[in-house]
Amino acid sequence: MLGQRAPRVLVLDGLNDVPAFAVAPAAHLLAALAPQYPVGSVFLAIVDPGVGGARRAIVVEAEGRHFVGPDNGLMSVVWQRARRRRCHEVAWRPARLSASFHGRDLFAPVAAAIAVGRVPRGWLRKADAPAVRLPAEDCYQVVYIDHYGNAMTGVRASAVRRDAHLVVGRRRLPFARTFVEAKGPFWTENSLGLVEIAVPCDHAASRLGLRVGQRIRIAR
Amino acid sequence: MLGQRAPRVLVLDGLNDVPAFAVAPAAHLLAALAPQYPVGSVFLAIVDPGVGGARRAIVVEAEGRHFVGPDNGLMSVVWQRARRRRCHEVAWRPARLSASFHGRDLFAPVAAAIAVGRVPRGWLRKADAPAVRLPAEDCYQVVYIDHYGNAMTGVRASAVRRDAHLVVGRRRLPFARTFVEAKGPFWTENSLGLVEIAVPCDHAASRLGLRVGQRIRIAR
Amino acid sequence: MLGQRAPRVLVLDGLNDVPAFAVAPAAHLLAALAPQYPVGSVFLAIVDPGVGGARRAIVVEAEGRHFVGPDNGLMSVVWQRARRRRCHEVAWRPARLSASFHGRDLFAPVAAAIAVGRVPRGWLRKADAPAVRLPAEDCYQVVYIDHYGNAMTGVRASAVRRDAHLVVGRRRLPFARTFVEAKGPFWTENSLGLVEIAVPCDHAASRLGLRVGQRIRIAR
Repeated sequence: MLGQRAPRVLVLDGLNDVPAFAVAPAAHLLAALAPQYPVGSVFLAIVDPGVGGARRAIVVEAEGRHFVGPDNGLMSVVWQRARRRRCHEVAWRPARLSASFHGRDLFAPVAAAIAVGRVPRGWLRKADAPAVRLPAEDCYQVVYIDHYGNAMTGVRASAVRRDAHLVVGRRRLPFARTFVEAKGPFWTENSLGLVEIAVPCDHAASRLGLRVGQRIRIAR
Repeated sequence: MLGQRAPRVLVLDGLNDVPAFAVAPAAHLLAALAPQYPVGSVFLAIVDPGVGGARRAIVVEAEGRHFVGPDNGLMSVVWQRARRRRCHEVAWRPARLSASFHGRDLFAPVAAAIAVGRVPRGWLRKADAPAVRLPAEDCYQVVYIDHYGNAMTGVRASAVRRDAHLVVGRRRLPFARTFVEAKGPFWTENSLGLVEIAVPCDHAASRLGLRVGQRIRIAR
Repeated sequence: MLGQRAPRVLVLDGLNDVPAFAVAPAAHLLAALAPQYPVGSVFLAIVDPGVGGARRAIVVEAEGRHFVGPDNGLMSVVWQRARRRRCHEVAWRPARLSASFHGRDLFAPVAAAIAVGRVPRGWLRKADAPAVRLPAEDCYQVVYIDHYGNAMTGVRASAVRRDAHLVVGRRRLPFARTFVEAKGPFWTENSLGLVEIAVPCDHAASRLGLRVGQRIRIAR
């Protein structure tokens, strides 16, 4: 009924509150976010502490979506979980390439070219796979803290029993389905299907002292 | 001269610095903001601490603008101040409705359908009025703190004498028309017509220790 | 290959993390940003602590780009560095002009009119030059702190020797070309061509206690 035209280029970078230097958390966040967007979407994914160094620029195509960014592990969780996948290295270099802003100079033009369906000959070169590969299993860390203070983990909720507790620091948090059902700090399955730590009408990260990269575990 | 096509969907949620759990302040902010936008605008208004609970989803039409969101009082100030108004309940539910992100799953598709003028039959069901109604009189609280630290109140400035003082905590602030005319902390009529607390070239909320929900009063 | 249609109106204001009251730093930031955007771009540049006071509203045209905003020095660095330039005063006033939000009421409609190429007769009046002119030489201050905590200065890097040190407070920072080459706090040439202070995988402004307006100097 409504137009089904996909949003074309989605930007995942530090400006979107993605942890600026934490590649592994961002890789798990990206893997959870991607399926929320239509096939055909192009992700410009830039968490790139090694900008200006020797790491490659790559384009991963996975399940019909494209991911453009550095070959530092960022796209490797998406890659390893995909059945239909291809990898290319970016061979093109712009006339003017700054040392610190490849998002603007290198990755964005490539993402735009893919989005409009016209990648000039020679820009991409076939590659076997991303060179840097992070573990693709669930990531038992806080991977993202949203604007409301809710702390997303890299653990997929589908495999976690609802009577299990989430342990973070010295706290053991019970499950609740919603904010209104919770009686205090709790874990829940968030809208991306991940285990998330929250507190009703409060900023969980401040209240519980959580930060990106913090370890969590699941216990009975 | 310029195109008069209305911006179609406006989002009012926590990401826009709206207080995330404070329904009453947000309801007054929405009532002040709405007339700034063209007739035909659709507001996707989501301040929804009860997400996943039993509250209804509603669409309020008031003075030719639509407001889509939870029936928790958020649209009730707009409703009560409107002469031309209608209310509908959202009967439609998406195939996949997360427990915590009705903005994405439920409200946004409804707002989009209204904006493009094609609401599928059966999505909306006529209702008498919002079930939850907050007082529609002026709200003597800080309702919003903007990026610059200016603190907006829910008091309409048109009825306040310019020789009156605004009392907040132990301070009595005089009126000034502009930042350049003020000699220190002052109140003014802001660009929405509301009483606002400000400090020239300073962050009023930090300087004066203001927060959303804080009580104020008007005194001679 | 890709569409060359320019982004039309770019907004530079406090919401974009531009220092809200610091006109000189913003003027240097604007001068560095402008050449990054296509000829034909329109900048809606609003750092305007004197809003509601007597300052004029102007439109500067420089090297084929337009700059709309207050005549408080904000466009004066762009002006003085331009070879092809013109200045107009905004003669038009809207029916309803708030005392505190000329961005919405006055400057945005003018910028929009320029962007669509239809400025009504009488809106603009020829002027000789901006009335307020700040020094156009390099600005030895922090002019902007970005989302990652990197501190941009108003010094153009092209004229600074790579074996020079940047002195800020009691620190002497060496040059490094990239984050990966740096061994600790360093200065670099950023993607706008300005001298920038950074720390690998850290928030330089917090780590080094930097703020907008802070003086820096270059030393051997």
